[in-house]
Amino acid sequence: MAIDENFVVRTDLALEAQEMNVEADPAQTGPDGVDVTEEQLDDIKVTYVKVDPEGAERIGKKAGNYVTIESQAIRKQDTKMQDELSTCLSKQLKKLLADNGIKDSDRCLIVGLGNHRVTPDAIGPFAIDEVLVTSHLFELQPETVAEGYRNVSAVTPGVMGITGIETSDMIHGIIHEINPDFVIAIDALASRSINRLNATIQLSDTGIHPGSGVGNKRKEISKETYGMPVFSIGVPTVVDAVTITSDSIDYVLKHFGREWREKDRPSNALSPALNPFEKRKELTEEDLPSEEQGQAVMGMFAKLGDEEKRQLIKEVLTPLGHNLMVTPKEVDSFVEDMAHLISAGINGALHAVIEDSDAQSYTKF
Amino acid sequence: MAIDENFVVRTDLALEAQEMNVEADPAQTGPDGVDVTEEQLDDIKVTYVKVDPEGAERIGKKAGNYVTIESQAIRKQDTKMQDELSTCLSKQLKKLLADNGIKDSDRCLIVGLGNHRVTPDAIGPFAIDEVLVTSHLFELQPETVAEGYRNVSAVTPGVMGITGIETSDMIHGIIHEINPDFVIAIDALASRSINRLNATIQLSDTGIHPGSGVGNKRKEISKETYGMPVFSIGVPTVVDAVTITSDSIDYVLKHFGREWREKDRPSNALSPALNPFEKRKELTEEDLPSEEQGQAVMGMFAKLGDEEKRQLIKEVLTPLGHNLMVTPKEVDSFVEDMAHLISAGINGALHAVIEDSDAQSYTKF
Amino acid sequence: MAIDENFVVRTDLALEAQEMNVEADPAQTGPDGVDVTEEQLDDIKVTYVKVDPEGAERIGKKAGNYVTIESQAIRKQDTKMQDELSTCLSKQLKKLLADNGIKDSDRCLIVGLGNHRVTPDAIGPFAIDEVLVTSHLFELQPETVAEGYRNVSAVTPGVMGITGIETSDMIHGIIHEINPDFVIAIDALASRSINRLNATIQLSDTGIHPGSGVGNKRKEISKETYGMPVFSIGVPTVVDAVTITSDSIDYVLKHFGREWREKDRPSNALSPALNPFEKRKELTEEDLPSEEQGQAVMGMFAKLGDEEKRQLIKEVLTPLGHNLMVTPKEVDSFVEDMAHLISAGINGALHAVIEDSDAQSYTKF
Amino acid sequence: MAIDENFVVRTDLALEAQEMNVEADPAQTGPDGVDVTEEQLDDIKVTYVKVDPEGAERIGKKAGNYVTIESQAIRKQDTKMQDELSTCLSKQLKKLLADNGIKDSDRCLIVGLGNHRVTPDAIGPFAIDEVLVTSHLFELQPETVAEGYRNVSAVTPGVMGITGIETSDMIHGIIHEINPDFVIAIDALASRSINRLNATIQLSDTGIHPGSGVGNKRKEISKETYGMPVFSIGVPTVVDAVTITSDSIDYVLKHFGREWREKDRPSNALSPALNPFEKRKELTEEDLPSEEQGQAVMGMFAKLGDEEKRQLIKEVLTPLGHNLMVTPKEVDSFVEDMAHLISAGINGALHAVIEDSDAQSYTKF
Repeated sequence: MAIDENFVVRTDLALEAQEMNVEADPAQTGPDGVDVTEEQLDDIKVTYVKVDPEGAERIGKKAGNYVTIESQAIRKQDTKMQDELSTCLSKQLKKLLADNGIKDSDRCLIVGLGNHRVTPDAIGPFAIDEVLVTSHLFELQPETVAEGYRNVSAVTPGVMGITGIETSDMIHGIIHEINPDFVIAIDALASRSINRLNATIQLSDTGIHPGSGVGNKRKEISKETYGMPVFSIGVPTVVDAVTITSDSIDYVLKHFGREWREKDRPSNALSPALNPFEKRKELTEEDLPSEEQGQAVMGMFAKLGDEEKRQLIKEVLTPLGHNLMVTPKEVDSFVEDMAHLISAGINGALHAVIEDSDAQSYTKF
Repeated sequence: MAIDENFVVRTDLALEAQEMNVEADPAQTGPDGVDVTEEQLDDIKVTYVKVDPEGAERIGKKAGNYVTIESQAIRKQDTKMQDELSTCLSKQLKKLLADNGIKDSDRCLIVGLGNHRVTPDAIGPFAIDEVLVTSHLFELQPETVAEGYRNVSAVTPGVMGITGIETSDMIHGIIHEINPDFVIAIDALASRSINRLNATIQLSDTGIHPGSGVGNKRKEISKETYGMPVFSIGVPTVVDAVTITSDSIDYVLKHFGREWREKDRPSNALSPALNPFEKRKELTEEDLPSEEQGQAVMGMFAKLGDEEKRQLIKEVLTPLGHNLMVTPKEVDSFVEDMAHLISAGINGALHAVIEDSDAQSYTKF
Repeated sequence: MAIDENFVVRTDLALEAQEMNVEADPAQTGPDGVDVTEEQLDDIKVTYVKVDPEGAERIGKKAGNYVTIESQAIRKQDTKMQDELSTCLSKQLKKLLADNGIKDSDRCLIVGLGNHRVTPDAIGPFAIDEVLVTSHLFELQPETVAEGYRNVSAVTPGVMGITGIETSDMIHGIIHEINPDFVIAIDALASRSINRLNATIQLSDTGIHPGSGVGNKRKEISKETYGMPVFSIGVPTVVDAVTITSDSIDYVLKHFGREWREKDRPSNALSPALNPFEKRKELTEEDLPSEEQGQAVMGMFAKLGDEEKRQLIKEVLTPLGHNLMVTPKEVDSFVEDMAHLISAGINGALHAVIEDSDAQSYTKF
Repeated sequence: MAIDENFVVRTDLALEAQEMNVEADPAQTGPDGVDVTEEQLDDIKVTYVKVDPEGAERIGKKAGNYVTIESQAIRKQDTKMQDELSTCLSKQLKKLLADNGIKDSDRCLIVGLGNHRVTPDAIGPFAIDEVLVTSHLFELQPETVAEGYRNVSAVTPGVMGITGIETSDMIHGIIHEINPDFVIAIDALASRSINRLNATIQLSDTGIHPGSGVGNKRKEISKETYGMPVFSIGVPTVVDAVTITSDSIDYVLKHFGREWREKDRPSNALSPALNPFEKRKELTEEDLPSEEQGQAVMGMFAKLGDEEKRQLIKEVLTPLGHNLMVTPKEVDSFVEDMAHLISAGINGALHAVIEDSDAQSYTKF
């Protein structure tokens, strides 16, 4: 859970951590240990964040590679876009595995983290129901396994409230018994932005860390813990009231900033706010108002940095019991679709025989 | 859905409508067509709002009786409190029926509005699965129906996106066919306050009206439409980003107001914000800061009335696609528990033979 | 429910009714009011049964057209075969509609019969969740409806145990309100053969009749009741212990008949019973043993006709509480897949714009 | 799965194994290594089967204690009877634990075997969702655990088709990691009698063995494997067509045997078969007809022993693909209720502080 108790604002996404860092110290942007590159493929945006040990300390994310894939495919419930997103996930995961030296013959354990009875936390368990497993065939009827399939097994360890066992301990016991060569962990995340809910998939080769995920999965699930590469696939499905408020205040400020800037231009006659039918607009950092203007609109809030603003709102809401974790009303179909898409992407990445574009038909359901 | 398109802020709860009204014109508080009385029973607060035709125009709610039952039983997942809440619901509904002249022999149709595949909108359909129906027994084997049971039938008309039919038309057809004496409609609502999510049940004798409910149930379901009394049972399960932001800004203002007021008092040493472990505090209207102070904290937002503030935030968020409807992460258990509780409450209210305290054991699942 | 109380053995499938009739009076085979033709398309067998009024009396099925589509697509969980079956269903339904004079502009109401909480009875409700509805668009935004779409609405009336209302009455009320031009009713059936479970789809233009279906849907859903064509799509999902026993006794007899016949042939050395790995065999009427042989194996049961045999077994099992209705262990995936396949088939048949082969992508889930 | 491939008829229930043994060699009845005692408590029948090593060989069940609890509570969907059954289960389990030297301070791991997506195989996983776990509290906040609670954890290892891992290996890894003192495994069983479906709970102190359970859980889950006591709780939820047929033929024979015997008595006029409203009758071994009579009715089948009969029917049905595993049509509510009841029973048995009669309110859902 990104929202920890001691008032340090965290995020599960390296991309957001880097943004927060840049924001806090704008002069520093650049190659100081965090390398960011982007690609746009039609409706999908892929961002590669490479964090070296120095950068790790700066942004509070473990050193390693993070790939963020952004698409509105799930939120728009657009089947064709979802197929494309799944194919993209498959390619990116395949590349990340290769970059980490994973060979076709290496055996994989997929772990579906989260609680299958709490829908926004169920992406992991739902995906496990659909991934292709072959480990038992390799063991019991190796002659039936066609060329091009990898040895794959999969587990849903459950959450501590239902099992009474630390998730990382349970995984440790299973790994000890079956000895895979690498692990892929799927998890639901908390987001620091309402815009990223069900619209972002983060891959990494750094595992899963304390405080990550929707539920409370405390101990690290990583190379350090298990002695083998641990990849993670995470999707933000929940956000807290602090984030929603902070984002919204930010938008209000930028909105006024842009309004004032556009006041002098001829197009002013048709203010965006008055025309709800135009294409969805986007506001950027450049739209922020001057300090004086900002203060008129939002008082001291206009002067606060993002972190300070969130900190302050949190200090107010938390004692009131008002800082709920929420999820979009359409959570049932969002989570089901996302789990399906992720399992198809994993199947395509793991088995050489599955063409990316054909991965959908290999899911079990 | 409380959030309609033409920028008029609405609420499904009469209680909130009255609060909004009072807020907008504080001097007017009092008996001008809206009569509010409260009762506190242990952890349950019951508010009776009686709206006469004059009041109806003022607060934008139909004339009639509204009973709001507030309890944290569901959010705390406390089984014992849920039983008490169900008993309370049963009593209040029984009273509302009696006040409207409903006799023990009158035949009831219960309607579960909403979409069974969208969990926060599924309270109606889930409750219908559990209410006790007897109509077929009265018709086919009247000799098997014991004394003290009412003739009850129940339907889940579905939502227009799945049926292609206006919900109110579908209900009209069914009523026309089976001729009940009165209707009880169960629906999920949008709330204007994050605090009321899954923590409030509203009963009314005014039916269900355009714009109400989580989905789009356009035509009125009321005495006017069907020619018989229509009671409604509604539970707020979703809230929009505008509401969360607006509420939070309000809390921030009050927080600072109280801080300043308490600055001169000795207890100041231990500021609430620094002590997160103390009992959940509550902020009231009296905590609002002075205009000058407010402006320092929140600029022009401090001067806006509640409606203006929401309107403004909405104008900013909507074109950005940022005004999501959200529901708490624990939506699955909240909705399941609430549906169970409501069906038990209805069973207790409708059948003289069922003791309020025993109603739980009459639900079907 | 095919198993009625007064010991008359019934079947929901016209094909079986005709088989029973032929069996009971073999000399009569031929054109006496029941016309049967078959087609084999790869793995799918289509049988057309045309019943005229005279035949109707003989086989106890209403006069009209029955199309039975048989395939192992669902039981083998073979996605490709399921797509083919769906396409076949679409074509057959389209043809049946055309043969009954249904025009492209005629408005359709689809009715999903059955209980959504009893999986083997849930094919109707599950299919309704996925069919494409357009009626509300024709009504509210006709300009958005592209050429080639039909006006379609859909309802799940529920079962009497949950609604307290006769299903046919509820449908009557809805039809009265929305005035469609024809109705398609989807229902789960009881089968008279274990082999047909989830492996047969029956289309008809005769509606749904008392005693049909898994639950108790008593009144007729037909042209006579509603004054418009009523088509039905039925799938056998349950079978009773009497049927399983009777079928099995029949197989035992045929097995021995064939054994004896093959005894004198050289291939005898390798008896089928001793070689479980050979391709699934089939036994036919011609394998029945001579009367004397049969009696040695099965005593008087060898002499009984199918009906007498079932009747007798039923008389024994029913008072023992032993005649359970059962469904295959894999019921969850069978019913889900079948509902999906049927909704795709219906979408393809109803909307001219949907290519049969493309229908799968138009289901909602 | 009780029905293995090499034509040896098995049963998961020791009670049935002993019955089969007695049947095969009636003279042998008595104390030859299998000790059977019965108790009747209102509607619940408890049978204790104690198997010593000699008896183990005879009946093909491991030496140890088996307790079979029979009740119609689930099939009759009678809530009150279910509470009583749960209390009875709790007492019997508590006694079995004590008899095996389990102390209040011993730490328990509960294992829910089976496939959560195949309803008749989901009793284990569903029960795990509801049992009370405390292990994490003992570890993380021992001061919060009240007197009288045991250290309990719980897992759902899944099935090999979904995980790719032998279930017993997965459990081994988890046990190795968390080191409990004893294990309780919950599983769905195949029955050799349609009467026992969802109407029997078998407890044992012998673990779970190859071939047991609805799915394919091959390796033993037992004291021998894990080095600690393994208790099992099993419920028959499926039956195969061979069993149904064999049972039914048996009933037919007994029916005729009784008819002939009663022919000479005055009550003959009112044959049971003609009066379906009388109380459910029961047929016993004593109703079997004479050999001659039996042969007239059922030919050679009348002469076959139970095992031979089943063997023969199996040889016929299996190559035809006709030997389906089936489950009652009401499987959804049966399995849900049974899982709830079992979790309540386990909670009552494990935690000294929970009164048997109060165990229901400690389940999580």
